[in-house]
Amino acid sequence: MFRKILIANRGEIALRVICACKELGIKTVAIYSEADRNSLHVRFADEAICIGPPRLADSYLNIPAVISAAEIANVDAIHPGYGLLSENANFAEVCQACGIEFIGPKPETIRLMGEKEKARAAMKEHGVPILPGSDGVVATEAEAMEWAKKIGFPVIVKAKAGGGGRGMRVIRSEEELPVHFAAASSEAASAFGNGDLYMEKFVERPRHIEFQILADSYGNVVSLGERECSIQRRHQKLLEEAPSTQVTPELRAEIGGILEKTLSKIGYINAGTIEFLMDEDRKLYFIEMNTRIQVEHPVTEMTTDVDLVKGQIMIAAGAKLQDVLMGPIVFRGHAIECRINAEHPEKFTPSAGKITAFHTPGGTGVRVDTHQYAEGVIPPYYDSLIAKLVVRGKDRDEAISRMARALEMFIVEGIHTSIPLHRKIMADPDFRAGNFDTKFMERFMTQTHKK
Amino acid sequence: MFRKILIANRGEIALRVICACKELGIKTVAIYSEADRNSLHVRFADEAICIGPPRLADSYLNIPAVISAAEIANVDAIHPGYGLLSENANFAEVCQACGIEFIGPKPETIRLMGEKEKARAAMKEHGVPILPGSDGVVATEAEAMEWAKKIGFPVIVKAKAGGGGRGMRVIRSEEELPVHFAAASSEAASAFGNGDLYMEKFVERPRHIEFQILADSYGNVVSLGERECSIQRRHQKLLEEAPSTQVTPELRAEIGGILEKTLSKIGYINAGTIEFLMDEDRKLYFIEMNTRIQVEHPVTEMTTDVDLVKGQIMIAAGAKLQDVLMGPIVFRGHAIECRINAEHPEKFTPSAGKITAFHTPGGTGVRVDTHQYAEGVIPPYYDSLIAKLVVRGKDRDEAISRMARALEMFIVEGIHTSIPLHRKIMADPDFRAGNFDTKFMERFMTQTHKK
Repeated sequence: MFRKILIANRGEIALRVICACKELGIKTVAIYSEADRNSLHVRFADEAICIGPPRLADSYLNIPAVISAAEIANVDAIHPGYGLLSENANFAEVCQACGIEFIGPKPETIRLMGEKEKARAAMKEHGVPILPGSDGVVATEAEAMEWAKKIGFPVIVKAKAGGGGRGMRVIRSEEELPVHFAAASSEAASAFGNGDLYMEKFVERPRHIEFQILADSYGNVVSLGERECSIQRRHQKLLEEAPSTQVTPELRAEIGGILEKTLSKIGYINAGTIEFLMDEDRKLYFIEMNTRIQVEHPVTEMTTDVDLVKGQIMIAAGAKLQDVLMGPIVFRGHAIECRINAEHPEKFTPSAGKITAFHTPGGTGVRVDTHQYAEGVIPPYYDSLIAKLVVRGKDRDEAISRMARALEMFIVEGIHTSIPLHRKIMADPDFRAGNFDTKFMERFMTQTHKK
Repeated sequence: MFRKILIANRGEIALRVICACKELGIKTVAIYSEADRNSLHVRFADEAICIGPPRLADSYLNIPAVISAAEIANVDAIHPGYGLLSENANFAEVCQACGIEFIGPKPETIRLMGEKEKARAAMKEHGVPILPGSDGVVATEAEAMEWAKKIGFPVIVKAKAGGGGRGMRVIRSEEELPVHFAAASSEAASAFGNGDLYMEKFVERPRHIEFQILADSYGNVVSLGERECSIQRRHQKLLEEAPSTQVTPELRAEIGGILEKTLSKIGYINAGTIEFLMDEDRKLYFIEMNTRIQVEHPVTEMTTDVDLVKGQIMIAAGAKLQDVLMGPIVFRGHAIECRINAEHPEKFTPSAGKITAFHTPGGTGVRVDTHQYAEGVIPPYYDSLIAKLVVRGKDRDEAISRMARALEMFIVEGIHTSIPLHRKIMADPDFRAGNFDTKFMERFMTQTHKK
């Protein structure tokens, strides 16, 4: 087992990794920017090293500074958390070159999954269902028509060079195709200087569902089931749950089995998440793979009893999956996570400043992951997540009523938070009925504003 | 289901009951003494009524004041919590007379279990193993010798009128009997004005193990397994765990089965705890039954997934056990609770005052039940429990390492707490090996002071 680990992150996930290390008897080294001097991850680590000024590029994203801290502290391994350097293949390589274990997949796997087309091809090769698409540029209208018929309407064309919705058009019929194809192409050309388009099946009212896997260095991979992550705003997840009301035990086992085989063949190591879209026929289509721990990992931990971060560390130290799991995976109960962000609950603008009162809810089935406390200060430089409130109930109804009461009993004063928004979501009839998709929040905010 | 419940208690258990009510959609009424005006149970209840000055007898134990509050607030039921009026048969009767449901057993059951000899007789009648004893006063030395031979040495004589160790003697052999019997009798006579003694089997190095049961109004009773409560100081439990390392699945099922039958015959309703001593041969002997929820109920909740307080309320409202349990009981993992008291960790003297910093640990497998917060004030009038820190792990080793890290990450400043003591217990080789009995803390404190 490792003797000492540096945590290349901040906030609640840094604290989460410290928890796992303490339970494994591993010493921890925190790194922090000048803005995080009074953060709890600094207080609870065995050692803490300031690596630079507040700006991310000067501190948490500064690879030489992070590596220097690791070398000064003489650590065996680095846990990258999520975000920041966690999916940076170059950083993983630098760690390797310095003889420091990077707690995650091999750099080449991170790189493969970072390139969407290659990742898609790799998944397709091994039988993971992917969204039908053109697999490359659709040069002409005639070609587009051919692809569209093959894929089946509705389809969507997207700018190869772009993002943010520009050069993107949903095409619902043969008649619509000529106009939309031309419009998308010229929009892409003017926005990105490149009119190239590709085509995919368009999923109406999609759900965002992801599968958690854990893999050791010996080719053993286990699927820990899915998480339902459709409650998003501007592609930011707000609330996640496990299991999904749309995934049957058969589908869970089928997709889980395919993923286990695929990732074993790919040589995937450590924790990973495979993101899917689900269409209205409950078919799943691979979108991308995240080669790190996710923010929402606690809902999986609460329904499977597997400590994922401990698992990551043990696997990186050479443990076999069987030693991490201590038995077959049993799914039990229903878990929901609400991301408590420091932001205005309706405008979604960040709310930095000093917390004047802070009381986290407790009791049966409630878990809180937070680095905040009364008198804590939220710096304006980083993401707005201040706590993850996670509950588990026997079933989804109990989990919802538990979350509603936990939100009521979560006191944060001095700043705005997303707590009032989550309380409204818990009371929403569509949410309660499990009747939602990735557009839920758009409709929800419109309705809420109307009221 | 009830519409509104009054919680006749304070502190963490009042908050615990509020959690259950909120999840069940029931309105809550808090009562509070003048000293508890800023307590969280007041803040989180839907209504709150001040029932008197700080002294217990003038507020929380003042039955007319409590009942008046219940009538003013027009509640359907009263949850008594633990301690205070929870085992007061008279209070339960007054509730009944006022048409308010008392959430607990019938008054006559409370009364039966409150009279130790009768409780013992009732349990014995239905086959619950009890500590062999004289079943009444042992008048003469000759009679004592007869009983001692029948029970088997070592035996203990105790003053019928007394307590606190006076008139109490362990007798290990026939030779010792005459002297000790006479000494105990005269000590009892001078201390209590009554020399009457009774005799019981003396258990060397006993463990304190208790079984949790839940019973509905239709004769259905379920055993939820045992809790190991041997870590005590001056008969105050400090730490509890479930399961006990000394209870095999066979013994758990055997005793559980006997208790289910017995309590069904007795007509027991609601939650209850049956306390046993365990001897070195792992034999269990009934001591007494507590007819209420226990402080340490969370370790059972965490290993069985049953919400005991919700269960209490549902049963009092007429629910059947099958609706509370939603399936067979499955024991999973290992849970430990540390009582975090506001007291000097070695002198055990209370530590009232203002909390200046308060951060509760979170993360996988950690539950905190507390009514305290930063800037909260601990009044000097009540018991010293400020929080219950409960963890669950896959097995006892994981639970211990989890508790150790959670204790490290529990910040309370401004007052003394038992946190440092619990940290030492977690590191103790005997505790870690499961090698302890009710005298553990005596030895532990002696060793700690020597170091």
